[in-house]
Amino acid sequence: MPDTANPPRYDVIAIGNAIVDIIASCEDADINDLGLERGGMTLLDAEGADRLYAAMGPATETSGGSAANTLAGLAELGTQCAFIGQVADDQFGEVFAHDIRSVGIDFDTPMRPTDGSDNEPPTGRCLIFVTPDGERTMNTFLGAGQYLPAAALDEELIASAAILYLEGYLWDPEEPRRAMRRAIDVARAAGRKVAFTASESFVIDRHGDDFRAMIDDGLIDILFVNESELATLTGEADFDAGFDAVAAKVPVLVATRGEHGAHAAAGGERAQVSAEPVAKVVDTTGAGDQFAAGFLSGHAKGEAMETCLKRGAIAAAEVISHYGPRPATDMQALMADKL
Amino acid sequence: MPDTANPPRYDVIAIGNAIVDIIASCEDADINDLGLERGGMTLLDAEGADRLYAAMGPATETSGGSAANTLAGLAELGTQCAFIGQVADDQFGEVFAHDIRSVGIDFDTPMRPTDGSDNEPPTGRCLIFVTPDGERTMNTFLGAGQYLPAAALDEELIASAAILYLEGYLWDPEEPRRAMRRAIDVARAAGRKVAFTASESFVIDRHGDDFRAMIDDGLIDILFVNESELATLTGEADFDAGFDAVAAKVPVLVATRGEHGAHAAAGGERAQVSAEPVAKVVDTTGAGDQFAAGFLSGHAKGEAMETCLKRGAIAAAEVISHYGPRPATDMQALMADKL
Repeated sequence: MPDTANPPRYDVIAIGNAIVDIIASCEDADINDLGLERGGMTLLDAEGADRLYAAMGPATETSGGSAANTLAGLAELGTQCAFIGQVADDQFGEVFAHDIRSVGIDFDTPMRPTDGSDNEPPTGRCLIFVTPDGERTMNTFLGAGQYLPAAALDEELIASAAILYLEGYLWDPEEPRRAMRRAIDVARAAGRKVAFTASESFVIDRHGDDFRAMIDDGLIDILFVNESELATLTGEADFDAGFDAVAAKVPVLVATRGEHGAHAAAGGERAQVSAEPVAKVVDTTGAGDQFAAGFLSGHAKGEAMETCLKRGAIAAAEVISHYGPRPATDMQALMADKL
Repeated sequence: MPDTANPPRYDVIAIGNAIVDIIASCEDADINDLGLERGGMTLLDAEGADRLYAAMGPATETSGGSAANTLAGLAELGTQCAFIGQVADDQFGEVFAHDIRSVGIDFDTPMRPTDGSDNEPPTGRCLIFVTPDGERTMNTFLGAGQYLPAAALDEELIASAAILYLEGYLWDPEEPRRAMRRAIDVARAAGRKVAFTASESFVIDRHGDDFRAMIDDGLIDILFVNESELATLTGEADFDAGFDAVAAKVPVLVATRGEHGAHAAAGGERAQVSAEPVAKVVDTTGAGDQFAAGFLSGHAKGEAMETCLKRGAIAAAEVISHYGPRPATDMQALMADKL
């Protein structure tokens, strides 16, 4: 039950990986030569990350992390946000903290000491190879992010946000998983909503039982999945059948289908939207993250489900039109123009 | 006299600032509000850099440094290059080293230890604000770069390059200045050419006497200046008069005039070229650096002066069409297409 005596201070608080993206363009052949899983996300250890970086072309660095990207998009759309995530006390940690704060997001998780070793790893990074078709192949070294402790949660902060947004990627390492479980309890006790993005099929492969149990227990109010995550989650190859099965269990379900648009369901109602046309797909990094940002920006204002979907489609189209996972345009003007 | 018994192993070796650029777009009003010198380059101490970074919007990081940018352009154009510059043993140092090596440039200057303090500063960085007209306003914290010691020079390496390319910016701090003086001696003793870019008027304000003496002493074979640097160097407001005065003293003089093209003089011959048309100026960072790269790539092959200038204009036009100070296109294909 919403705590009407205590209206939320934030629209959305997110817990996610605090990561710096290292982005380079590459040829199609490089993906094969380097043995990468095209279009996927692979976890690397420190040594693997160093080896792959050495094989990478000239790159640019920019703040990333799935939930953090979504928040950055939400903030650009005028939504009040706070972020919880673990960086190390190093230059990439400063870059991450700077970029998220510079768009007006509150971020106060203390930096973790680092000596660069396995025990005190540096800030996480994601090596992203972008092929000429704009597809991104991600290779992530979680670094300090995997040590986000439940003790680092500011529980008052979590209770003060209308929506707690969680990133499936961060379900994989143990400490952050425990922290997120605790955060769900805090949010629900305060009468807040819990939103969850499944992130990637491999996360569901490993933690699908957790997710299905949380759905069955009514712990997830808003669920974001893409087509292949939905199939992995439900074991149902047919999109509509899988969608119906999950829609019966979560108050709001949002399923993206890439160039085929997106579907949503809430309280027995359905809506769908086409993908926004894009002149040239430059880099698909952040497409799903920004779709979620667009959708939630509308949802936070109580807009109709179809409008929320349209906002998601517009935000996703913007981010795939340029390099980098966060908006590079005046998003409020873009929405005003396109809606 | 060229050492014909010992043909050069590299076309160009450069000594320059090893810097990571932190680039953000901003509004025109921000330049005034932050008290920045629009279009210029200002040196910051560590505290000033932190303060300015905190006031900066979301940014991306990419390797920079004037001479290093020129080398990156040269390498993309198929020129054999090596770089000497001082980074600290930190993440930005790794980024710089990775990016310069990833285009095939040899870079072996040992990283300098850092504890982040004033005595052991981190890798240098340049905070670049890009206004809507594409103009960049640079604010540089030299960091470890200002400590490049003469002892770090690989003298055999310097003697093995046909051209030693030096960056005026690095003339400002004392240790690198001494290192560059030593490098000039080494290069000349080996019968190699010395190329010098004036970098910025403020450098000439402070070290003009050095530069004029080096020119008079015949220590500079190829000099790159822009219009305002030429005026500062000669004290001559009239471009043609200043150009003629310097052209009489250096074997090759290249003077860029932004959108008004560029002039060159060598051995009594003159040539000039118009600026290449650009659909939209996105970020002028690196324009002069890439002009020098284009020019030198032709000069290294013994091309006609007019072709060298045209190469410079093409390379400058490419880099101002996108964010970041290094080429983002297949430059050899672009040259083949445009020449």
